[in-house]
Amino acid sequence: MTTNRRDPQQAADLLIEVLPYIRHFAGSVMVIKYGGNALAGGDENTALAAFAQDIVMLQAVGISPVVIHGGGPQIAELLAKVGKVSEFRDGLRVTDAETLDLARMVLVGKVNSDIVGALNVHGPVAVGLSGEDANLITADLRDKDLGFVGDVTSVDPTILTRLVSQGIVPVIATIGSDAAGQAYNINADTVAGAVAAALNAEKLIFLTDVPGIRADMNNPESTLAQVSVSDLEAMVASGAASGGMIPKVEACCTAVRGGVRRAHILDGTTPHALLVELFTDGGVGTMVVDS
Amino acid sequence: MTTNRRDPQQAADLLIEVLPYIRHFAGSVMVIKYGGNALAGGDENTALAAFAQDIVMLQAVGISPVVIHGGGPQIAELLAKVGKVSEFRDGLRVTDAETLDLARMVLVGKVNSDIVGALNVHGPVAVGLSGEDANLITADLRDKDLGFVGDVTSVDPTILTRLVSQGIVPVIATIGSDAAGQAYNINADTVAGAVAAALNAEKLIFLTDVPGIRADMNNPESTLAQVSVSDLEAMVASGAASGGMIPKVEACCTAVRGGVRRAHILDGTTPHALLVELFTDGGVGTMVVDS
Amino acid sequence: MTTNRRDPQQAADLLIEVLPYIRHFAGSVMVIKYGGNALAGGDENTALAAFAQDIVMLQAVGISPVVIHGGGPQIAELLAKVGKVSEFRDGLRVTDAETLDLARMVLVGKVNSDIVGALNVHGPVAVGLSGEDANLITADLRDKDLGFVGDVTSVDPTILTRLVSQGIVPVIATIGSDAAGQAYNINADTVAGAVAAALNAEKLIFLTDVPGIRADMNNPESTLAQVSVSDLEAMVASGAASGGMIPKVEACCTAVRGGVRRAHILDGTTPHALLVELFTDGGVGTMVVDS
Amino acid sequence: MTTNRRDPQQAADLLIEVLPYIRHFAGSVMVIKYGGNALAGGDENTALAAFAQDIVMLQAVGISPVVIHGGGPQIAELLAKVGKVSEFRDGLRVTDAETLDLARMVLVGKVNSDIVGALNVHGPVAVGLSGEDANLITADLRDKDLGFVGDVTSVDPTILTRLVSQGIVPVIATIGSDAAGQAYNINADTVAGAVAAALNAEKLIFLTDVPGIRADMNNPESTLAQVSVSDLEAMVASGAASGGMIPKVEACCTAVRGGVRRAHILDGTTPHALLVELFTDGGVGTMVVDS
Amino acid sequence: MTTNRRDPQQAADLLIEVLPYIRHFAGSVMVIKYGGNALAGGDENTALAAFAQDIVMLQAVGISPVVIHGGGPQIAELLAKVGKVSEFRDGLRVTDAETLDLARMVLVGKVNSDIVGALNVHGPVAVGLSGEDANLITADLRDKDLGFVGDVTSVDPTILTRLVSQGIVPVIATIGSDAAGQAYNINADTVAGAVAAALNAEKLIFLTDVPGIRADMNNPESTLAQVSVSDLEAMVASGAASGGMIPKVEACCTAVRGGVRRAHILDGTTPHALLVELFTDGGVGTMVVDS
Amino acid sequence: MTTNRRDPQQAADLLIEVLPYIRHFAGSVMVIKYGGNALAGGDENTALAAFAQDIVMLQAVGISPVVIHGGGPQIAELLAKVGKVSEFRDGLRVTDAETLDLARMVLVGKVNSDIVGALNVHGPVAVGLSGEDANLITADLRDKDLGFVGDVTSVDPTILTRLVSQGIVPVIATIGSDAAGQAYNINADTVAGAVAAALNAEKLIFLTDVPGIRADMNNPESTLAQVSVSDLEAMVASGAASGGMIPKVEACCTAVRGGVRRAHILDGTTPHALLVELFTDGGVGTMVVDS
Repeated sequence: MTTNRRDPQQAADLLIEVLPYIRHFAGSVMVIKYGGNALAGGDENTALAAFAQDIVMLQAVGISPVVIHGGGPQIAELLAKVGKVSEFRDGLRVTDAETLDLARMVLVGKVNSDIVGALNVHGPVAVGLSGEDANLITADLRDKDLGFVGDVTSVDPTILTRLVSQGIVPVIATIGSDAAGQAYNINADTVAGAVAAALNAEKLIFLTDVPGIRADMNNPESTLAQVSVSDLEAMVASGAASGGMIPKVEACCTAVRGGVRRAHILDGTTPHALLVELFTDGGVGTMVVDS
Repeated sequence: MTTNRRDPQQAADLLIEVLPYIRHFAGSVMVIKYGGNALAGGDENTALAAFAQDIVMLQAVGISPVVIHGGGPQIAELLAKVGKVSEFRDGLRVTDAETLDLARMVLVGKVNSDIVGALNVHGPVAVGLSGEDANLITADLRDKDLGFVGDVTSVDPTILTRLVSQGIVPVIATIGSDAAGQAYNINADTVAGAVAAALNAEKLIFLTDVPGIRADMNNPESTLAQVSVSDLEAMVASGAASGGMIPKVEACCTAVRGGVRRAHILDGTTPHALLVELFTDGGVGTMVVDS
Repeated sequence: MTTNRRDPQQAADLLIEVLPYIRHFAGSVMVIKYGGNALAGGDENTALAAFAQDIVMLQAVGISPVVIHGGGPQIAELLAKVGKVSEFRDGLRVTDAETLDLARMVLVGKVNSDIVGALNVHGPVAVGLSGEDANLITADLRDKDLGFVGDVTSVDPTILTRLVSQGIVPVIATIGSDAAGQAYNINADTVAGAVAAALNAEKLIFLTDVPGIRADMNNPESTLAQVSVSDLEAMVASGAASGGMIPKVEACCTAVRGGVRRAHILDGTTPHALLVELFTDGGVGTMVVDS
Repeated sequence: MTTNRRDPQQAADLLIEVLPYIRHFAGSVMVIKYGGNALAGGDENTALAAFAQDIVMLQAVGISPVVIHGGGPQIAELLAKVGKVSEFRDGLRVTDAETLDLARMVLVGKVNSDIVGALNVHGPVAVGLSGEDANLITADLRDKDLGFVGDVTSVDPTILTRLVSQGIVPVIATIGSDAAGQAYNINADTVAGAVAAALNAEKLIFLTDVPGIRADMNNPESTLAQVSVSDLEAMVASGAASGGMIPKVEACCTAVRGGVRRAHILDGTTPHALLVELFTDGGVGTMVVDS
Repeated sequence: MTTNRRDPQQAADLLIEVLPYIRHFAGSVMVIKYGGNALAGGDENTALAAFAQDIVMLQAVGISPVVIHGGGPQIAELLAKVGKVSEFRDGLRVTDAETLDLARMVLVGKVNSDIVGALNVHGPVAVGLSGEDANLITADLRDKDLGFVGDVTSVDPTILTRLVSQGIVPVIATIGSDAAGQAYNINADTVAGAVAAALNAEKLIFLTDVPGIRADMNNPESTLAQVSVSDLEAMVASGAASGGMIPKVEACCTAVRGGVRRAHILDGTTPHALLVELFTDGGVGTMVVDS
Repeated sequence: MTTNRRDPQQAADLLIEVLPYIRHFAGSVMVIKYGGNALAGGDENTALAAFAQDIVMLQAVGISPVVIHGGGPQIAELLAKVGKVSEFRDGLRVTDAETLDLARMVLVGKVNSDIVGALNVHGPVAVGLSGEDANLITADLRDKDLGFVGDVTSVDPTILTRLVSQGIVPVIATIGSDAAGQAYNINADTVAGAVAAALNAEKLIFLTDVPGIRADMNNPESTLAQVSVSDLEAMVASGAASGGMIPKVEACCTAVRGGVRRAHILDGTTPHALLVELFTDGGVGTMVVDS
């Protein structure tokens, strides 16, 4: 018999705390944006394996996770390897046809495959998708000076709901296409918001490398535990939110305005932050609510 | 925002421990024998409310509990109240027609209703059954000198599987009947074993007021963590198990021989012992396995 | 070959009369209130067996019977046996906690079990329910001076329709409970009317020990064959209906106003009165119609 | 209120007798051969209307009737009308192509349509079929000297079971066809036996103009109430059964040997003989049983 | 290996043309009126076999054909054979009871059976129906001076949709009946329009012996390729359409006004005209469209 | 009205030829291997668009196509672009970790996405899969000297049958993985044979750039129209088949031995060769049959 290392009372207390969350979330869909930085940093395989374990556990307790990922650092790496020098306009990289081709290869054929592979060590759990599959993400050109960078025009969640109903975790690379079949690279945060809204998800969760949204960008102590959509929109308007946080913040607003109950921005570098956030009273990061 | 009183790492560790059990047990049927003593003692309502909370939680995470109960102390109480003096043979109470009538009233109309009532505070969760309902338990006379005391001849689990498939917790009072409609009072431990086998349950769990089975009756330190059916049968044969523990031990053997994966005898007076046993690595009480 | 004692022409005539009724009622739900007096009187077992045979026959020809019963005489008997002396207010018995407990034991654990047992001699036909099961009957306090006597606040027929769809006859003891799990004793006639309406039943039938409703209480010759709901309401208002007949009359009105096609008050002491009423042109008792 | 002309006790007695039969036969399939003579004689429309009423009642109480008919007298009538003089061989009419065409017109377009029409006065109850429909009856040539007279080679009951499952009464004209599409006229009694066996029917019933099978052809008093298949086969072998009764007797044997529980030969000219036979203890005619 | 007699490029071109039509029509219902003249003329069996082959092919590629037929020439033939001399009013044949009986025999028992037989050479494909079956066509008297000639009052397509859903081709003889069961002979073109509307068919197709509708009756060169319902109605009003073409034209209008997408009048004497019309860009005959 | 440029008789003839094939293949699964060469050559986009059109047409007529592709030339192109110089052993390229990564990016993120994109111009038709998705292809190391080149150990067709049942065309990149999640590059011809067998496909079709299998490698006139599996196995054993044709030939044998009815090797550079082969009597290329 295994030695019982844990205090039974403490375990009972935690169970009493945890089980109602499990009950509450059973049957719900959660969209989880997994940042490219998480994959690129330090011990990439360990972090990815821990993430995969968390996703498999969500599924085990009846939650349907949908994973969306980026891949900026990995794209930069391949561009460097082929010696592709990008043109920049106003500080933004211009995506010409060759860049798009290479980015698509990295997102669909590298980052997506790596995540799917890490999940499927646990069984036939995950299927990788690009936004081009079954016309999942329809996009159009954002700005012709930026090349093949797209904006989401619509999301057709049919293929997602089918896979989810079969117990499959869809893992989505954020390439979209237009009616003529032209592909575009699209911001993954934005896609996450649109997909969460289209699925009428219970939650949209950003696993990033920051602890949440700060009321004052310059003050690490000002991280917000909870914020309403309207306050968040005001922060964007006033410039209080800026930089790389903008697409995440906007995606949270899109999602919650579109029917998602809660959006979260967490520090995904803390091991199992996702589980702790979902299943215990003590939240981590910032939660965005309707009002 | 709620203050996070718990160490996140500790919570993460427990979640990693707990979630696989939840995954493993989802969809399984568990038969839980709830002893009359548990109801009769000290703060009865508090104990019953805690038990009801545990059962509702099992159901919340996808387990289908089936509750079986006795009611010895409560029957004695009513007999005393009506001034019924029982005849005893070899130390066993003779169940004449009036005693049967009173026992049935207590089991079906008092103990069963109390348990159902406590569960249904949480919603339309439970339905009370007697073994007479839909011919659930067919019985015949054990020994005519003992009066209307019955042995189980067969269990028809149809009504149980139907209720369970509709998300209902059946709560069973252990009155059975024969083909002519004659009712019998039956030992609740024995019924629990037969019902668990008929349902091909994942587990049969006895919530008693002792910590488990002792290798040496007289040595409280000798409680067994795990024991095989064959060792247990040997203990009964040798007299190492005796007294009120015999029906429980025999029911465990019946159940496991009949296809139930595990049987457990736990101290149900420890708060939430049921949850700790099911969902953590550290077990409590005695687990009976096939071999 | 069996001797043919019956005149074939006569049999053909009756078949031609009976079969259309059987066709008409196939698939319908009928709520039948079986009075406690019927059970308490004379040769109780014979009367109960005949009632059980009629119910099983209804089911055999495709009707779904739902049985509701009282148990006044049986409750009085147990109260006497335990030496419980009731307080009375305005001639009504005050139901204190002990009385409620004893009444519940009798209704759920004695009368209900007896009826279920008599039905199940014919196969796994019946399941006993109390209003506490699956929150079937929600009640609240009628008048705090009367103790735990309840009024129906709502009926959740889910468990009934499920059992009925599985070919089970629900037999209902009229204990209800409130959201806190407090039980109440409720008038069985009133429950019968509310359940019939909740099930949108084809018929509500009271099997009593009187031949029907009299236009003039004092004139046995004035029994009405048919009466409209509005005339009946007028009779209650004018005092033409009174006493123990009031709850039955009101329940008939509730049921028919709530969508039940017909309500009937019959003398259940005539053997097989139920079958004769349902399947032949010659009705017995009083039929209540919409207008 | 309708005056109750019938003695309630008598009605109750008959109901107690009738209802178990209705219960027993609910859900079963019965194949009923309706003879051409019944249609041709005296007040044809009245007899047909009474037959239609009986069939509709069977269906109303959950029995699935399948009707098979002949039409010998009606064929003879049309042949006479067109002045067709038939050749005879060994006393049997030779069916040449023109005769077949005329016979088919009468069976499919006259007798079948008349029966369907009489049934459908009661609602959309019946659909007429010929054995050519959906390859219901495959046949081949019996004897080339007799022309287009066929023997049943196989029955494909698919279309029958589909219609029956939709609450439709199939009415079958006994024309069959071979793989090349050639039609044949087939003995209706023989078809009835084969169809009853293919449907694994509860009963095969011949409605004829005689009271049953006689042990001694010449003695009207010798009508048998019940007879086994093997005794019947012996009667055919010994010549005790002969003439027009042979195909009926053989069809009864085929059916019962093929799994039909009971075959009956009744006098269909007695009003509602079918109902009296099926639903009362007093049978009429001859019942053929397995052994 | 078969020699490839066909130019592959040509075959590829035709496939590219044909496959989209097959895709487009898959799952749709088409009502096809097959004229009695087609059956009566020249090599009747060859024409019928070719028609059957076309119908079976429609079904093979996922179209649900419903066939409706007339039988004027065949009725005249039987009337002549029995020596029945008809009375005429205003040039129209009076249908007395005997004539109706003979017409029904021919339509239901001859023409219908012949078509069903030709189809079922290909397998259990077709079932013959008369409008009397399952109350498919309800009719009433058109004009009492004309006898039992009926007008369609309603079409109950239930039996058609059931058979169609089971992969059966219904073949309909146009006899209808009223509520009392009286049969009527009805114009088959009219029935075809009403059935197509009741089924909300994709197409109604008349296979006739003329190439289509002429703008100028007297000019064979004026056959219209396409015409709108309103133009067609104007042609009827102005007398530009007349004679036997009137019921077809009116049926086309009824059908298209009732929701049928397209109606067609084709020359059915051209082999496989039906297939060429449906599956190639080059149409034949006249197509009637909504506007 | 469109001018009818085609001879109607010729169209009818072709329809009569084509429709039975469409009927025959409706509901069947066909695995189509689309070679990387086809994509790499000349006017790549035009060839891909024509291929996509053919696949969409198959689907339109009820066939379920599953597409498998290679990408040799495209992999070579990216290796060249990043300046990766491969080591060779016995003339075979060694696949080190970086080469595998790049090959996977090309197959999954370039060739697969291009095919999916071309198909989805026609609607939400296709979903791209890698063998890593839902553990579709399990592989292990072929030869450690060759690096990450894998052999198929098993195919789990669950995800394919689900997508196919939803009307989706799966497009498969032939990367597999082992239980530890290690990816391997696998020969696409081999995968095609294994997938066709796992799906119990009607056909396996190789679209290559040669007209079929030659009896004599050096004689272009010796292309075989049909060959049995055993003859083909003898040709491999004798060395009559060699080089790049070996994996295709072996895959054909695997598939047919595994239950696939027919395997075909066609010249996919002829426009619409796939349609002509499937739907006309004149085949192209070589057909492999069981015996």
